[in-house]
Amino acid sequence: MASSIFTSVTRLAVFIFVTSLVSCLQVISAINAPNLPRQGVVSSDQILRNLIDYKTYYFDQKIDHFGFAEDSTFKQRYLLADQHWHKDGGPILFYTGNEGDIAWFCNNTGFMWDVAEELGALLVFAEHRYYGDSLPFGEQSYSDAKHLNFLTSEQALADFAMLTEHLKLDLPGAKHSPVIAIGGSYGGMLAAWFRMKYPHVVVGALASSAPIWQFKDLVPCDVFYKIVTDDFSESGKGCSESIRRSWKAVDNLTSTDGGLQWLSDAFHLCSPLKSKEDALFFKSWLSETWVNLAMVDYPYEANFLQPLPAWPIQVVCKFLREPSLPDKDLLQNIFQAVNVYYNHTGNTQCLNTSQTATGNLGYIGWYYQACTEMVMPMCSNGVSDMFEPQQWDFKAFSDDCSQQFGVRPRADWATTAYGGKNISSHSNIIFSNGGLDPWSGGGVNVHISDSLVTIVIPEGAHHLDLRFNNPFDPQSVLKARALEVQYMKQWIKETTLNPGSQSNKIV
Amino acid sequence: MASSIFTSVTRLAVFIFVTSLVSCLQVISAINAPNLPRQGVVSSDQILRNLIDYKTYYFDQKIDHFGFAEDSTFKQRYLLADQHWHKDGGPILFYTGNEGDIAWFCNNTGFMWDVAEELGALLVFAEHRYYGDSLPFGEQSYSDAKHLNFLTSEQALADFAMLTEHLKLDLPGAKHSPVIAIGGSYGGMLAAWFRMKYPHVVVGALASSAPIWQFKDLVPCDVFYKIVTDDFSESGKGCSESIRRSWKAVDNLTSTDGGLQWLSDAFHLCSPLKSKEDALFFKSWLSETWVNLAMVDYPYEANFLQPLPAWPIQVVCKFLREPSLPDKDLLQNIFQAVNVYYNHTGNTQCLNTSQTATGNLGYIGWYYQACTEMVMPMCSNGVSDMFEPQQWDFKAFSDDCSQQFGVRPRADWATTAYGGKNISSHSNIIFSNGGLDPWSGGGVNVHISDSLVTIVIPEGAHHLDLRFNNPFDPQSVLKARALEVQYMKQWIKETTLNPGSQSNKIV
Repeated sequence: MASSIFTSVTRLAVFIFVTSLVSCLQVISAINAPNLPRQGVVSSDQILRNLIDYKTYYFDQKIDHFGFAEDSTFKQRYLLADQHWHKDGGPILFYTGNEGDIAWFCNNTGFMWDVAEELGALLVFAEHRYYGDSLPFGEQSYSDAKHLNFLTSEQALADFAMLTEHLKLDLPGAKHSPVIAIGGSYGGMLAAWFRMKYPHVVVGALASSAPIWQFKDLVPCDVFYKIVTDDFSESGKGCSESIRRSWKAVDNLTSTDGGLQWLSDAFHLCSPLKSKEDALFFKSWLSETWVNLAMVDYPYEANFLQPLPAWPIQVVCKFLREPSLPDKDLLQNIFQAVNVYYNHTGNTQCLNTSQTATGNLGYIGWYYQACTEMVMPMCSNGVSDMFEPQQWDFKAFSDDCSQQFGVRPRADWATTAYGGKNISSHSNIIFSNGGLDPWSGGGVNVHISDSLVTIVIPEGAHHLDLRFNNPFDPQSVLKARALEVQYMKQWIKETTLNPGSQSNKIV
Repeated sequence: MASSIFTSVTRLAVFIFVTSLVSCLQVISAINAPNLPRQGVVSSDQILRNLIDYKTYYFDQKIDHFGFAEDSTFKQRYLLADQHWHKDGGPILFYTGNEGDIAWFCNNTGFMWDVAEELGALLVFAEHRYYGDSLPFGEQSYSDAKHLNFLTSEQALADFAMLTEHLKLDLPGAKHSPVIAIGGSYGGMLAAWFRMKYPHVVVGALASSAPIWQFKDLVPCDVFYKIVTDDFSESGKGCSESIRRSWKAVDNLTSTDGGLQWLSDAFHLCSPLKSKEDALFFKSWLSETWVNLAMVDYPYEANFLQPLPAWPIQVVCKFLREPSLPDKDLLQNIFQAVNVYYNHTGNTQCLNTSQTATGNLGYIGWYYQACTEMVMPMCSNGVSDMFEPQQWDFKAFSDDCSQQFGVRPRADWATTAYGGKNISSHSNIIFSNGGLDPWSGGGVNVHISDSLVTIVIPEGAHHLDLRFNNPFDPQSVLKARALEVQYMKQWIKETTLNPGSQSNKIV
């Protein structure tokens, strides 16, 4: 039983690593949010189609940078856009790809497209190994632990370093181009780590919504769910409380066969609930939905993880004003709420609990990474958050990983490798975080040094700053982007003044 | 033929990587060298026996830090000496072991023993994986490319980081101890790279005689042999010229069976020369001898690579004053010269060309490292140096590596991984080099920043500064050691003042 519960929580935890770590989304508190009319919002998809134009290339990377017995190579995909590049020294903005299809990240990192002209920059989007088209062993890449063995952040960073050096040698005019790493979420972690580990390759990094401290003993494990909860609490009266009470209501109903059937019908589930295990899975699916909503709470209508209205949490919360209703009434409202997420188009025939978001992400790959070095403890307590209490159980997590992949996580390794909170010797990294972003709890929000810049966007959520400019952007993100450009210009200038040194600190 | 010649050069090149990269030796130019009486020299072996006292421990390290399919561990040996340690915060001096038995390095790094009391420091000597007792797969460790796969500098640095963090957690009082990495030669490269890659683990590094620039396109490939030659030129008139002329004399003699026999007798060789290949090997052995002499040219009698008199090159050069002698006379003198190196005790029955130095070094391990990531181009031209002209032939080297180990070297990787000459963003590293050290040609001798300190010891050779104080030390090395201690104190002080930050730069 405990194991079953854990498994569902694991699934949740892993899932939110995946979805939230890759999405370019905005959450905003109800207090500050204008109630924007849906009709007036410019779709970011429309903007994308007009601006984004790149060429696709492939680079031969060693499958193993850190050993020599495996000497084969694979094709790493990368995208280039040089429309605005000032050749002969103009900077390179290098997107450090996350766990998914690089074209999707490219399409969702409008900031780089918006600033390319101003900086005269070449844009590079490098795909992370084992995702998208960049599969070291083709279809066999995920077949077993042996083939998955080269899926690590260290190998990915080495790929980025090799690719960058290749581009600087290979592209006419790139030899003296300063390179700036940019990434969001896990890609932001990689951007920061790229600068930390290869400061000779990149002059600086913009690490947006990068939870580099979401590791063992660095932040409280309950911080993530607390922030999700706050987003709901602040988006409507009774909203988070309705969700907090819904778990018991689900338990009550799923204790009988009739209740299971009622719930399946009420939620229009494609596959009816049949057992206690199904009920646990159902609650896990609900949790994922709330987490995803917290991350896709854009100020404008968009289709990211799902097609959604502007400010979806506010829309959701309109159905959740009365937490004290009887179980069935409460759950009917919960259905209306999740239906906002799953059926905004009105075309959804039934709700499928086995997938909650876009197919552009490499869920299994990230699950493997979470099961090896990206071990991010998560827990909830049901008091400061609206979720069911769940402790972080490393042993159970490890057993699950062993069963799934035949590997054991190393919970301390990321901190040993990347420094945990002791990062003050590094320079030229911008850590930007949204005040509404669940991942900001594991991000760098404290002042460390003048050349490790922290930017907090109070009305922003998960790397909103990396998205296209939008008429409905809050002022804070516009200021953040302007500051980011200012720092990038400073790094570029310093490098140009001292071509032998890519690392002068900001004074 | 070309391939054969290359093979012998390869052997030489590899060998000098091994010997010179591990020895703690002093070369001094004849111009500056006092002609010290042999009787008055204090044997460093005597000092060792009185001062060195440590305990031996073993730490379970992951065989593979960068992959999860191989989850086994091995026992890494390390030595601890806490006689002078100020517990509860006193610093830790951490020797980053090279390619050999750690006890041998411990015995030959007297500097750490000399300064332990003044700094109140704990001494740690960590053995490098695949050397000494620290064999990941026991006797199978060297059996094939698969077992050798985890012998890399990156894995070694990760070992050091894991061990350091273990010690800080495990040793009562060590939690807030600042750690300083110290190493010489390849160990010095590791010390510098340890600080570069894990600045959160070590507050600074003393990298003595660390040729971190002895890689492709960073320094001229002939610089090493040129410095060896200069050492001989400055140690006696006609000395390097005699050696330069000896190669042709060997060629002349080894062109006939009678000449081969004469040479074998004249050099008291244990195994007589029989073929052209033997002759090439013989010349390679001579070259190794000169290189080793350049590195063991202590100002005092010692037994390091071999038992030797004080200033052995001066002693050698007494036999090499007449370069213009006929072949046999010249080679008789060459024999007298090498006999200084191989038979100082007078007990050597015959000269064995298959070994030229101590058995404490892991020759095969280093050969493997040179054949993978530690690819250090070497060449000679016979004009600015006294050796036979030999170009650096990467392809032939690579073929040799493939044949020996089933691996191919990656000549660019070390520069991609560690930054080549672009290291200015790092801090708190002392690069010390001896003006007479052949390896100083690949070392950091130029000013880069105020917190990357370069110290040149004009009368010093290969990490002399890491040896015990000795009555016959030149002033320059005493000053170097004092400066090194001063910087270490500064790093310690800054860390103590800012316990959250291990990385404040020296102002």
